[in-house]
Amino acid sequence: MANEKKQVEQITDMEADFGQWYTDVCKKAELIDYSSIKGMFIYRPYGYAIWENIQAELDRRFKATGHENVYLPVLIPESLLQKEKDHVEGFAPECAWVTTGGAEKLEERCCVRPTSETLFCEHYKNIIHSHRDLPKLYNQWCSVLRWEKTSRPFLRHREFLWQEGHTMHATAEEAIAETEQQLEEYATFCEDVLAMPVVRGVKTDKEKFSGAERTYTIECMMHDRKALQSGTSHYFGDGFAKAFDITYTGRDNQLHHPHQTSWGLSTRIIGGIIMTHGDNNGLVLPPRIAPIQAMVIPVAQHKEGVLEAARALLERLKAAGIRAGIDESDQSMGWKAAQYEMKGVPLRVEIGPKDMEKGQCCICRRDSGEKVFIPLAELEDTVARLLDEVHDSLYARAKKNLEDHTKVCRTLDEVKQFMETEGGFAKTMWCGELDCELKMKEEAGVSSRCMPFEQERVSDVCVCCGKPARHMIYWGVAY
Amino acid sequence: MANEKKQVEQITDMEADFGQWYTDVCKKAELIDYSSIKGMFIYRPYGYAIWENIQAELDRRFKATGHENVYLPVLIPESLLQKEKDHVEGFAPECAWVTTGGAEKLEERCCVRPTSETLFCEHYKNIIHSHRDLPKLYNQWCSVLRWEKTSRPFLRHREFLWQEGHTMHATAEEAIAETEQQLEEYATFCEDVLAMPVVRGVKTDKEKFSGAERTYTIECMMHDRKALQSGTSHYFGDGFAKAFDITYTGRDNQLHHPHQTSWGLSTRIIGGIIMTHGDNNGLVLPPRIAPIQAMVIPVAQHKEGVLEAARALLERLKAAGIRAGIDESDQSMGWKAAQYEMKGVPLRVEIGPKDMEKGQCCICRRDSGEKVFIPLAELEDTVARLLDEVHDSLYARAKKNLEDHTKVCRTLDEVKQFMETEGGFAKTMWCGELDCELKMKEEAGVSSRCMPFEQERVSDVCVCCGKPARHMIYWGVAY
Repeated sequence: MANEKKQVEQITDMEADFGQWYTDVCKKAELIDYSSIKGMFIYRPYGYAIWENIQAELDRRFKATGHENVYLPVLIPESLLQKEKDHVEGFAPECAWVTTGGAEKLEERCCVRPTSETLFCEHYKNIIHSHRDLPKLYNQWCSVLRWEKTSRPFLRHREFLWQEGHTMHATAEEAIAETEQQLEEYATFCEDVLAMPVVRGVKTDKEKFSGAERTYTIECMMHDRKALQSGTSHYFGDGFAKAFDITYTGRDNQLHHPHQTSWGLSTRIIGGIIMTHGDNNGLVLPPRIAPIQAMVIPVAQHKEGVLEAARALLERLKAAGIRAGIDESDQSMGWKAAQYEMKGVPLRVEIGPKDMEKGQCCICRRDSGEKVFIPLAELEDTVARLLDEVHDSLYARAKKNLEDHTKVCRTLDEVKQFMETEGGFAKTMWCGELDCELKMKEEAGVSSRCMPFEQERVSDVCVCCGKPARHMIYWGVAY
Repeated sequence: MANEKKQVEQITDMEADFGQWYTDVCKKAELIDYSSIKGMFIYRPYGYAIWENIQAELDRRFKATGHENVYLPVLIPESLLQKEKDHVEGFAPECAWVTTGGAEKLEERCCVRPTSETLFCEHYKNIIHSHRDLPKLYNQWCSVLRWEKTSRPFLRHREFLWQEGHTMHATAEEAIAETEQQLEEYATFCEDVLAMPVVRGVKTDKEKFSGAERTYTIECMMHDRKALQSGTSHYFGDGFAKAFDITYTGRDNQLHHPHQTSWGLSTRIIGGIIMTHGDNNGLVLPPRIAPIQAMVIPVAQHKEGVLEAARALLERLKAAGIRAGIDESDQSMGWKAAQYEMKGVPLRVEIGPKDMEKGQCCICRRDSGEKVFIPLAELEDTVARLLDEVHDSLYARAKKNLEDHTKVCRTLDEVKQFMETEGGFAKTMWCGELDCELKMKEEAGVSSRCMPFEQERVSDVCVCCGKPARHMIYWGVAY
């Protein structure tokens, strides 16, 4: 059995090589495959199913707050991309350019969208005329291209899947409220659905989105104590609206520019799930987005009545609204146990001849390895309860990781020492100057993660220059 | 009120100019907008919501038959596209080519996928090794690009949304069974969900998909008696598998090539819905995919209690699982009636002070204009029943159109006369030769639509050359 287990696992220990462990999990859990284009990945059925569950839940939440889905073209003419100066500077270096259509060279080359602010603005100019047309609360599910030099499954693709919300509002106040509301939507989604605790905050000017006035972010801490920016929400003011000449007639009969937001969350979050919850046996999926929440495994399935009993459990679980599967293959118990550990299935439900005699089954938790024998009559209730318990326990563990490795530092040396010995989020004060931000990167190897909404005054002076402090800020090493 | 109605409608009568009527409906019902790239359209919220409902229903059906969703890259290296000769000949002339990524010229240019057979084959080569790996039943929801010269909303886009199924099987028999199963899936979906009757059949060699051995199709007849190819399913044999060197070890321990299928249905079907059911007041949506199935409209809503009564109806409808909306705006009743006619909402539910006194509401059908007053207690049951009746009635009307305008013709002259005077599907015998197919196009302006599964022997000789007949075939003018 040890051998069979080995056949499935063969993954590097995370303590030995975290990067290799991560890649192994992505491959061996069959989440992803490589394509012949560098940096472009194939989302395999199990990986895509996780994304579908994320999509379904986010989509429901977006619609509940009045957002509507649309689909805009995948190509952006170069002149359109150039309309907003900061924006084009940020994205043009990473664009993939279409220059030929059919047999003809295009009069103007087009980029494959890296993000769609410009396209939305062009459309909004057509459809926004009066204050009655506002707000416009649109969202798009699509893929985007960014021609990056390095790549890593889920974390950095040249093409990745995401949603991008783009909204227009009559006033700055409304737009800012939307930006904050959507950031909070991401935060509660991560916490309540993905069991990932987040730090909510504001990006520095250096780290904000190209063209934005302000960028909000949620930052998560991975097992290796690095930071993952997991969702962002941007307030644009009326900068794009001016560049695209979008106006509306207000209640005052005057022309005004509307105020704009955008917000996005991508398949990178799946990388975050892996690195937050995974262990040396493979993936550990938070139950609320697991494609299979409970896998039924017949024990000694050749014995009379076992398969029928296992199938009966499967049907009962499905009828109770639980995403359940069954493995009736002729693989050994050891192989099956290892396989569904690798795939991070939250619960295994086993039933064999002895269990049948006793009117029980065995439920095994992926997160803790704990096994419980329960009377068959209690199946649905127990599985539902255990799924919630697994969620809570994953969240608590990740929260502890975040808290244990967030440290108040008062000097640059303290930050350096913390990052060198332990790693995590250095919580410091900051004067607000770019020079200090650059120096932190150069000397301590950290980038600013965010200025948390919940500010504390952990010191009176900037961690870097010693001048009067303006913000509490988190620093870390980011994916 | 006539004036107000005018404000909303302003669409061309279909009898006056069918093409203009169609474009008017697409724009005025707010399904679509133009972008700055010729032939690339914006799917607006109402149009996209129809697609979402189509997606949800098809996706459920695909999964019920064991299909899994995946996502493969949007770009295809030129060398990959060229691996299957017939395939590249069919698609290369319509490809959009990416030649630059970031600042660098690519070593090999890539096309934005026009369809993904080649990408799936590359992936299948990686993951298919043994008969245990078969079948692979994958589907992908995405957009594809085809650089066409002309364009028309939904019917011909340079970028359109679709699903593409790609499957691999151990034997030809299994692959053919899959091809036929998926065609039947499309057919029943069109009939049972979209209320669109279809003709199921096989394409001629001339009309089949580039690289396929056999293409199955469903063909629908539009109001103007033209044909719309609404879904296709292809059997490839092992041609791609050989070109891509995909093999598996069979139960016999020998290497074999697997057999392949693909099948697709696109947003073009929305064009089909419009041209099958629409009328001179605008869109008419089949209830089972209508984003709003019933729109509640308060009458004299400033009067005491009216809004509350209307909202109560809305909540009851929603609770009964009906997609319902309410229009509380200060627009007139005439405007509202015209607006939801234009948008093709199957039922309007009106309630005003007089109705409240009588404990009733008024339900108005979009398809027939019929109004019924019903006791409030019967709301949910009546709405559910009427939605089914609307579906049946739309289907019956479309079926009558198809049957009334399908005519047996025995000579080329009969076909010419039929197409010139009446138009529709000419049902004839055919010898099976390409020459006759080309001559039919040249002389009668018709293309072969399909050789229906249900063959009849309507004559002994080919409609064109008079030689012995091999197939019954439908001819028509196609979108």
